[in-house]
Amino acid sequence: MPRPILATISTSNMAHNLRTVQQHIAQQVGAARFERTKTFAVAKANGYGHGIEAAVQGFAAADGIAVIETEMLARLRELGWHKELVLLEGFFEKADLELLQHTRSITAIHCQEQLDELRSLPAGAALKVMLKVNTGMNRLGFRPELLSSVLTQLAQLQSQAKVSEVIMMMHFADADAFDRDSVDDAWARMQQALQQAQLRQFRIESLSVCNSAASLRYADDLLLEGYRNIIRPGLCLYGASPMGNAEHEAAIDFNLKPAMTLKAQIIAIQQVRAGETVGYGSRFTAQEPTRIAIVACGYADGYPRWADASTPVVVNGIETTLAGRVSMDMMSINLNPVPSAKLGDWVTLWGEGGPTIDRVTECARMGSYETLCHLNLRVPKEII
Amino acid sequence: MPRPILATISTSNMAHNLRTVQQHIAQQVGAARFERTKTFAVAKANGYGHGIEAAVQGFAAADGIAVIETEMLARLRELGWHKELVLLEGFFEKADLELLQHTRSITAIHCQEQLDELRSLPAGAALKVMLKVNTGMNRLGFRPELLSSVLTQLAQLQSQAKVSEVIMMMHFADADAFDRDSVDDAWARMQQALQQAQLRQFRIESLSVCNSAASLRYADDLLLEGYRNIIRPGLCLYGASPMGNAEHEAAIDFNLKPAMTLKAQIIAIQQVRAGETVGYGSRFTAQEPTRIAIVACGYADGYPRWADASTPVVVNGIETTLAGRVSMDMMSINLNPVPSAKLGDWVTLWGEGGPTIDRVTECARMGSYETLCHLNLRVPKEII
Repeated sequence: MPRPILATISTSNMAHNLRTVQQHIAQQVGAARFERTKTFAVAKANGYGHGIEAAVQGFAAADGIAVIETEMLARLRELGWHKELVLLEGFFEKADLELLQHTRSITAIHCQEQLDELRSLPAGAALKVMLKVNTGMNRLGFRPELLSSVLTQLAQLQSQAKVSEVIMMMHFADADAFDRDSVDDAWARMQQALQQAQLRQFRIESLSVCNSAASLRYADDLLLEGYRNIIRPGLCLYGASPMGNAEHEAAIDFNLKPAMTLKAQIIAIQQVRAGETVGYGSRFTAQEPTRIAIVACGYADGYPRWADASTPVVVNGIETTLAGRVSMDMMSINLNPVPSAKLGDWVTLWGEGGPTIDRVTECARMGSYETLCHLNLRVPKEII
Repeated sequence: MPRPILATISTSNMAHNLRTVQQHIAQQVGAARFERTKTFAVAKANGYGHGIEAAVQGFAAADGIAVIETEMLARLRELGWHKELVLLEGFFEKADLELLQHTRSITAIHCQEQLDELRSLPAGAALKVMLKVNTGMNRLGFRPELLSSVLTQLAQLQSQAKVSEVIMMMHFADADAFDRDSVDDAWARMQQALQQAQLRQFRIESLSVCNSAASLRYADDLLLEGYRNIIRPGLCLYGASPMGNAEHEAAIDFNLKPAMTLKAQIIAIQQVRAGETVGYGSRFTAQEPTRIAIVACGYADGYPRWADASTPVVVNGIETTLAGRVSMDMMSINLNPVPSAKLGDWVTLWGEGGPTIDRVTECARMGSYETLCHLNLRVPKEII
């Protein structure tokens, strides 16, 4: 039998989150504009650690799935995904072009070298592309003021039937920030890019602007009339908030439900005297006689190592906290608030019936993004 | 083709590290005492992220391999490992006993419930056990003062041929700490446990005391004359120091070599103006015109998300630093110190030809322990 730890992935909660984000947007922008809005669910990093199979089921109602791993394109087609597929970072080498064609995927185009390689496509094998505009994040993409040559090249590739539709895409560096200035700046640069296209009579019918945070916060401003808008929600679809555990913007305030519930069993109980310490670095000192449970989950499973003493866990419906530093394969928790707890009981570390992952990761000064991705392969997964 | 990122696992460096730790101990304790010292290489969490296949090759000269995952016992036998195998947290349920017998593994025994379950073994199917003594970490094991009943039960199990040899084991909470008091306290409790055994004329021939830090620091005191001593090095075998990047106790000071080298390719280059920012949260502001490389490795690959602006990387043999926050699938680095760098060049993130993993994780206020374990399955691995 495997170690007594289990990650339960709820595809119905994933479907609920997708619906919830879409409803939230429909309420903000009205039915007419929402009708022209498509959703590409982001499922890179193996569906943020939830498994690509779960993503295919949970996001069945999405219009597309977006990943960055070339090998996932074929895998998603094998799994029966027949709608749009997007390679968000674009292709990495010429050899990937065949895979893009074979899997009928959309590719991001963010640099001149990729444009050069598109020329090698056989005529008639037109790819749909997402043209990445660098609106100030300075990661991937072309600056608006340098788009002129790019659009000329794309027009030529279209005339040779090497490129079909061009979707214009941008990415915010600060959509989760308190202050909106950076979002406004980036949005102004996107307008500049659109003007470049209009000036050159280059046809752009679709825009992709909103990540999770922008979808939840700014849809009314950022879903542009006259275009098909494609939102790209990621983290929020898994039931975590891109704004973390912030007041008013926690997952629950958006009616998001946890996609993953992580539980592990109590494998030992120690009765510790007042003044005695627990765990590596002797970080926890018992203030009174304390019953400590050792739970079969550690940082190698993906639980954050630096979760502090205030980090919540739930045992038999009662919330208690960690006691001492999380070790590689185990953690210790304070059982004094849960007199009923006994060996073999399951402890909910995050998810349904437990704390939100945002609360847990906040206690570790980390984020839900990386914590979800770090779920280790050795943790048995049950998809429901 | 996969994304352009690669983890190269050097089994020869793993073998070198094992030899180095053993030589270090031989120098400390002398040839006679070293001859009675065995090494169980710790390879839980899929060999600290390096892959269990690499561990089998790299630690071929060890006397045993220790894991905590029940499913790894059968896997290790399949891979041809014929020497000792240890389940360090012990078994989790009665059904695991058959697996232990089938794979001829040693199991830790840390609680009364496990002793109860050992009684169900068929006579003649004797298991070798490691009796875990709780010497103050208060995680797993029996307190020395409560060993009396445990030893009586073990003697009975031995007389029924359900248990063969009993090895006594402890684990330090603070062997990596600056101050040695906690180690001395724990060691005194281990003496107390050994006295309990002597009083009851319970035969203990082997002791297992030293983890990585204790092996490197205190072997002379902790490898006890008159016993077979079993060391259990873990992290240090992978070329990281349990003391992190500390002065005088860094990996290089112990002559340890990196088991893992992580590299990724430059997939885009941005020319950024003075005053412009890079990445999520706009954390990096260019002080002068700066060439930024975007590298195909992010925190979903296992690189620490919170690595700060001083974190080193090496491009074309030249050390430079991160520029801005690590994102999920990419990071940005400052190319101004490396004018020769171009698209497609490989950047060494840690390991041979790059910074040590201890330096990198220190810049992220994390440890090499969790960072190695977080290496994601999506990173292609090459075992050399």
